Amino acid sequence: MQMQLGQFLLRRLQEVGIEHLFGVPGDFNLSFLEQTLQLSSVKFINNCNELNAAYAADGYARCKGLGAFVTTWGVGDLSALNGLAGAYAENIPVIHISGLPPLHAVNDRALLHHTLVDGDYDNIGRCVAEFTVAQTRLTPANAVIEIDRLLQSCWLERRPVHLQLPSDITHIMIEVPAEPLTLIEPKSDPQQLAHVISRLKREWQPENRPVFLLDNDALRFGVVDFIKIIAEKLNISYAVLPSAKGIILEDSPLYLGVYAGQASLPEVSNAVHQSHCVIGVGLRLTDCNTGLFSQRIDDARLVALRRFDVAINGAQFPGVMLKELLGKLAAQLTEREADTRISQSPLPVSHTNDPSFSQAYFWQAIQRFIQPEDIIFGEAGTAHSGASNLRLPAGARYHSQIIWGSIGFTLPALLGSQIAQPAQRHLLFIGDGSLQLTVQELSTLLQHQLTPIIFLINNRGYTIERLILGESSPYNDVNEWHYAQLPSVLDKGDNALSFIVDDIPSLDQALQAAADPNRDKAIFIEIRFSPLDAPPQLKQFAKRFAEYDYGNSGPRNPNH
Amino acid sequence: MQMQLGQFLLRRLQEVGIEHLFGVPGDFNLSFLEQTLQLSSVKFINNCNELNAAYAADGYARCKGLGAFVTTWGVGDLSALNGLAGAYAENIPVIHISGLPPLHAVNDRALLHHTLVDGDYDNIGRCVAEFTVAQTRLTPANAVIEIDRLLQSCWLERRPVHLQLPSDITHIMIEVPAEPLTLIEPKSDPQQLAHVISRLKREWQPENRPVFLLDNDALRFGVVDFIKIIAEKLNISYAVLPSAKGIILEDSPLYLGVYAGQASLPEVSNAVHQSHCVIGVGLRLTDCNTGLFSQRIDDARLVALRRFDVAINGAQFPGVMLKELLGKLAAQLTEREADTRISQSPLPVSHTNDPSFSQAYFWQAIQRFIQPEDIIFGEAGTAHSGASNLRLPAGARYHSQIIWGSIGFTLPALLGSQIAQPAQRHLLFIGDGSLQLTVQELSTLLQHQLTPIIFLINNRGYTIERLILGESSPYNDVNEWHYAQLPSVLDKGDNALSFIVDDIPSLDQALQAAADPNRDKAIFIEIRFSPLDAPPQLKQFAKRFAEYDYGNSGPRNPNH
Repeated sequence: MQMQLGQFLLRRLQEVGIEHLFGVPGDFNLSFLEQTLQLSSVKFINNCNELNAAYAADGYARCKGLGAFVTTWGVGDLSALNGLAGAYAENIPVIHISGLPPLHAVNDRALLHHTLVDGDYDNIGRCVAEFTVAQTRLTPANAVIEIDRLLQSCWLERRPVHLQLPSDITHIMIEVPAEPLTLIEPKSDPQQLAHVISRLKREWQPENRPVFLLDNDALRFGVVDFIKIIAEKLNISYAVLPSAKGIILEDSPLYLGVYAGQASLPEVSNAVHQSHCVIGVGLRLTDCNTGLFSQRIDDARLVALRRFDVAINGAQFPGVMLKELLGKLAAQLTEREADTRISQSPLPVSHTNDPSFSQAYFWQAIQRFIQPEDIIFGEAGTAHSGASNLRLPAGARYHSQIIWGSIGFTLPALLGSQIAQPAQRHLLFIGDGSLQLTVQELSTLLQHQLTPIIFLINNRGYTIERLILGESSPYNDVNEWHYAQLPSVLDKGDNALSFIVDDIPSLDQALQAAADPNRDKAIFIEIRFSPLDAPPQLKQFAKRFAEYDYGNSGPRNPNH
Repeated sequence: MQMQLGQFLLRRLQEVGIEHLFGVPGDFNLSFLEQTLQLSSVKFINNCNELNAAYAADGYARCKGLGAFVTTWGVGDLSALNGLAGAYAENIPVIHISGLPPLHAVNDRALLHHTLVDGDYDNIGRCVAEFTVAQTRLTPANAVIEIDRLLQSCWLERRPVHLQLPSDITHIMIEVPAEPLTLIEPKSDPQQLAHVISRLKREWQPENRPVFLLDNDALRFGVVDFIKIIAEKLNISYAVLPSAKGIILEDSPLYLGVYAGQASLPEVSNAVHQSHCVIGVGLRLTDCNTGLFSQRIDDARLVALRRFDVAINGAQFPGVMLKELLGKLAAQLTEREADTRISQSPLPVSHTNDPSFSQAYFWQAIQRFIQPEDIIFGEAGTAHSGASNLRLPAGARYHSQIIWGSIGFTLPALLGSQIAQPAQRHLLFIGDGSLQLTVQELSTLLQHQLTPIIFLINNRGYTIERLILGESSPYNDVNEWHYAQLPSVLDKGDNALSFIVDDIPSLDQALQAAADPNRDKAIFIEIRFSPLDAPPQLKQFAKRFAEYDYGNSGPRNPNH
């Protein structure tokens, strides 16, 4: 079977579930983009810049399993690199297709634009290799092998890959397999697997007060439902790390809340600290996940389930695959009566009786506003801090990028997510500083007549930075915009309703419009808070961060 | 003498002429930013994102000699990387200061946010090393040595350097030299230098019909004035490569125009091709500089003056420094009578007698509009193509980034340039597609009450790409905005006047407002052209590019 090389790549993308390709056109990728017009199966979505395209592909992959974006050589690749690094850090399988100059020029080390004029065509690959799990330069000879290898690696590791597509070979006919590509899930060593299963059954006996503690690999590797089944059958409570907020049903008596070391609510940290069998899934105990390394989980009490191996009380078991292990357990287990459940924590959202308009009031109102199946994005800063305290209704999902923590991520990621699932209600919470980094992508959202509800938290600066250092320092100020006018300027359609909220009645009015089930426009709500209005736990955490970051000699905020 | 480490770095920056530092605050650079508040000598300018900060530092360096910007670890560094690569490709000395996590965390390989959670703190450095000439991680022990080494390297090579500043050592006291830093210009080997001078005097005899051909190193290494003196004394004509447009006086009978191989006007290419002594200065014969490698300059006719060495008809002379060589020649030479001048080319700007409003008409109007001492930025695409055909009045300067060619560069670069020289009139020509990549930096321009004249060429898409491939393909479309409203939305001050131009009278009106010598506001002019309105030579060039890029098998525009 023969096919043009670029068409084969598009066919493979479609076979692994990708229906949209994000990116920015450039001279070295136009011939490939031309091929997307001939096939209706994969649609190209024009982004405003390449970093936004990478973020959009990330948001898309969070819903569809895999995402992809296209750049042009050098300029586009490097602009997008931070997005790839974010996908790596957050375990998101994203395929980066870079339009390389024609092979003849690369082989001749020709002195082209978009290069350093030194004939080096490997520098981009060396950079990108730091933040991807597989890289290749396609040729007509290797394309079939390499495309399949990269897609398999991307899926296996749930991390980005980088694929260089020379501009002059997109239309070359190659011999391709007729069969569709099936993404492989690795299989366990049967003996190791059996051994781990029997050990696990011993470890999570009721007297050990077992508790599940999940990181986002549980979602990425498709085991959340298995965990839910196991937890329900055995009456084991579960908590999540901050980077896994929202991946598992919160509207359940088994849900404890978010565990972040001493930055947790006492009910959550007590449950974890008193357990003799913490069943960790993909745990990454970073500073932000642990209240600056204040977790108390020692190896002797930990069953560490990882992607492809397990450690039980420090003993290592390679060759045990997470999905197979938990799938088998979920299927095998019978219900047990003993109640190992830990009493549920109270609703963690901060309460206020203060009738004035504040972040505390706002998040209470949002708690009432959110619905089952909502897809919620929370940008780093007070937005994530507030949103991560929400107790999500069934089926709602929460996305953030708190491991990598690149501000500006969520707006383009929201675009990607809603392109993937246009019918689902999307909510975004984002601060003014963060919005400014990637604001242009609002244009693409509106152009495609998507209807998210965007809450712009305008607190006139980088509030989270102010809490760490420079409470009133000008370097933490952000120039104020007429934010509410953005939707009517960045798009010529009439695709959004804008609101400015600075008190309770105006919030009610905006939320009422947003809640309208017949709404066919996006909602953009600018909400004005004072610069230092933030959840108290964030203030406390920021203070400890300043100690950690600036040492004994360093500067401090006056109130620290 | 003792000083805080961060203060010493700021002192060194100030000593080499840097008065402004661009960047974005982040937890790992706040303690350093705090130090900028204590010293009035270096002012921090907040950018909307890190790529824009890198571009702004580039624009600043083009005027002030050196520029600098600050990011935070990982996220900020990678976002800015494309800007560093551009500075490298264009020979711009930019200092990148990255706020690293505290040294204790780095040494412990702590699992922090803004990392891949693998304890690796060297991946960023490895990436950045591809696009900088020197890199360092500062410690209290090495800071004095390393800061001085990096600043010297940056200046010596006129290329970017990368400096990692851990967040916990900014306020550590270190022993520092009392003397200011003097940037070193390397000295030649006296014998080699003497030899080259005598060879040169022989080569550029009138019978060889000598001609100067300049690339942008002539400007970066400060030898343009020497070349002008030599050219005037010896009556030698000069041409520039496209990447050196505007670096030398064009309002002179010695100025030939822009040489780009067969993409040149015949008067220019004839002069160069008929010369038996082409004195090239820093030539980089890239695709865009040579009309796709159609130059006709063989080594046997070439005197190649480079930064630190010379090649004469293929013979190599290391250890001859460009600045010393041309400085000496300019001082030594006596005027000669023989007229080796080549008759001047006509005004290359395209002429039109068509009375309808078009790009051709527009650029004629701009030719009349520009003034001596104007600083003009031309974005890649039809903007650069049109602007590079202007004949600049005395003292006017033109900036583009056509070697690296990263679209969106010019708006933030304009910010940097005008922060450096607020009193000089700045003009920007930029297309709609390019503007969208970095549009938020308009906010910073207005916030600082700068008064550039911005010509937004709205042709509803990537016109230069349309000419190459996909004339009416949707991937080359750009979502239309209400561009003229941007200044009033991205800033709350009343710091700009906006115009929409779609015919001759509206252009006249806008230009009249822009020309007002008492103007104290920025001018933003949206100019509407049809999507395929472009200079004819650009169309021709695009067609040849498609052949080069997509090979025999590849797609073509119908009219190609």
